Amino acid sequence: MADLDSVKALTFDVFGTVVDWRSSIIGEGETLGRAKGLTVDWARFADSWRSLYQPMLSRVRNGELPWTKLDDLHRMSLDRLLVDFGIAGLSETEIDHLNRAWHRLDPWPDAVPGLTRLRRRFILATCSNGNVAMMVNMAKRAGLPWDAILGAETARHYKPQPEAYLITAELLGLRPEQCMMVAAHNGDLGHAAGCGLRTAFVPRPSEHGPGQSSDLEPKRAYDAVAKDFVDLAVKLGC
Amino acid sequence: MADLDSVKALTFDVFGTVVDWRSSIIGEGETLGRAKGLTVDWARFADSWRSLYQPMLSRVRNGELPWTKLDDLHRMSLDRLLVDFGIAGLSETEIDHLNRAWHRLDPWPDAVPGLTRLRRRFILATCSNGNVAMMVNMAKRAGLPWDAILGAETARHYKPQPEAYLITAELLGLRPEQCMMVAAHNGDLGHAAGCGLRTAFVPRPSEHGPGQSSDLEPKRAYDAVAKDFVDLAVKLGC
Repeated sequence: MADLDSVKALTFDVFGTVVDWRSSIIGEGETLGRAKGLTVDWARFADSWRSLYQPMLSRVRNGELPWTKLDDLHRMSLDRLLVDFGIAGLSETEIDHLNRAWHRLDPWPDAVPGLTRLRRRFILATCSNGNVAMMVNMAKRAGLPWDAILGAETARHYKPQPEAYLITAELLGLRPEQCMMVAAHNGDLGHAAGCGLRTAFVPRPSEHGPGQSSDLEPKRAYDAVAKDFVDLAVKLGC
Repeated sequence: MADLDSVKALTFDVFGTVVDWRSSIIGEGETLGRAKGLTVDWARFADSWRSLYQPMLSRVRNGELPWTKLDDLHRMSLDRLLVDFGIAGLSETEIDHLNRAWHRLDPWPDAVPGLTRLRRRFILATCSNGNVAMMVNMAKRAGLPWDAILGAETARHYKPQPEAYLITAELLGLRPEQCMMVAAHNGDLGHAAGCGLRTAFVPRPSEHGPGQSSDLEPKRAYDAVAKDFVDLAVKLGC
């Protein structure tokens, strides 16, 4: 492992890396379905919602849309999915509550204990494409002990645009190499490394449910590879 | 007291309201003075440094300077004060360390216990003119349990410009009236109220040392007035 004495902050991808978005969205759908008598394949619904995520971000990244926070992009996708899945009869309040399911994602079981240990030594910041309110509400509910909520909205650029990583480091008053990006995704880490950040890979082999084929293994050399956040704390000497 | 059920977040002024900047800067100066054999009136030095604060912010607010974070404004003031006070022989590292004394301010004794209680019910965010790194480092050292570090740098506007208050609320996903500004300064609260935020006044009668004459009393009607943060928690039902 490279000498990591100069690392002052860990910057975290959140969706998939810290929280289990898929099970959480399925659970929220099932609860709504029971309450409203809906028959929906909620796993397919969750996967469909997430599959619209990168195309939506691309529309902002390429300038087709002005800066739009993730809550609003999620809502644009949701409005379309409600039609596609034949879900009718929801009030505006119910649709908004469903859209804000992304504020109520459950952490992986190791996330809170691992972060709590890591926080003794490092500044812990989000570097997520989620907007600030989403990250704050998620952290408050789940007990995620962040020192700062940063990332796309405070940088006004969606990952993997370099500004998302670089402005996050700058807001922390740090050089890129004083920050270590922690993610379950080889793509995210490759872009972070390209910006000069240190990198830690923590695989989340069930993020996409059974049969996941992507991001099961590190695809390049990282400064750290750990099986979960508690293991990461051990490997980083916390 | 007004009906406060709709208040979701408390947004805090920090210098003077949460931390005792004056005693902290005096203490840092005394430590440096002993180490370097300097004879300086550190109380006058602290007051002089702070007296350059509003003029520096004004230069950014009026466009004479481009956006400049408070760390850098503090450094510009410090470079001038070192000359004015005849302080010579400091290395760049020592000057930078002194400049970052503002990252190491001590909280008022009631701040951590009060915030810890308030956090059970409310989102707690900074709405300070301090930059993110300063607020993060200060919180980490002092144990201030913020849910989010927001304010001037994330709004790119210094208080009392309305954007500093309004963008802070917006980043939290809240309407202004769902936020309550907590400050020891009538001016700050007046501007926050003008933007539609709720307000809480907590006097800090020794912020400016013995003989303080300003902000000893609430100068207008606020939604809450408390003698310290623990009293504020009681008054807000936490």
